[in-house]
Amino acid sequence: MPTQLETAMDTMIRTFHLYSSKEGDRFKLSKGELKLLLQQELMEFLSCQKDPQLVDKIMQDLDANKDNKVDFNEFVVMVAALTVACNDYFVEQLKKKGN
Amino acid sequence: MPTQLETAMDTMIRTFHLYSSKEGDRFKLSKGELKLLLQQELMEFLSCQKDPQLVDKIMQDLDANKDNKVDFNEFVVMVAALTVACNDYFVEQLKKKGN
Repeated sequence: MPTQLETAMDTMIRTFHLYSSKEGDRFKLSKGELKLLLQQELMEFLSCQKDPQLVDKIMQDLDANKDNKVDFNEFVVMVAALTVACNDYFVEQLKKKGN
Repeated sequence: MPTQLETAMDTMIRTFHLYSSKEGDRFKLSKGELKLLLQQELMEFLSCQKDPQLVDKIMQDLDANKDNKVDFNEFVVMVAALTVACNDYFVEQLKKKGN
């Protein structure tokens, strides 16, 4: 039986491949595939973010390699950055409550 | 309703705090807490890894800051690195099968 954390890691892998295999290089996300993934898989989570420019900033950062493609490594870095941002918000709220 | 990817991100946050709150600084993992987390939450997933030294290498890397504590940022980087390693293995197997 995998643990919840193992299932979470498996979900990252499966989600990436679900979208990367839609068109072109099946092991990389095109800009269209990335946009679809963000819209369909991350919109609710992103809404807990206070920075409304966050998604735009991510898109810009990921464009830096200039090939208009996002590999799994870059995708995981993006998910990690979003998770750290949400954790910062969560910890801030906890500290405000004096817990 | 959160998506599976959002649930995965939430799981990373909850898992970290479950262990970091056990003793001392509640927002950082002590070495003991990190070891417990690896043993209880990641052993099955790590077993898909071909490198038997991986956990030792991670521990060594995380010790680099010399305070014997792992913050959430460092934890997420570790989970990301493990996920990339497992994805590499998964893709390699797929390519071997000629899929």
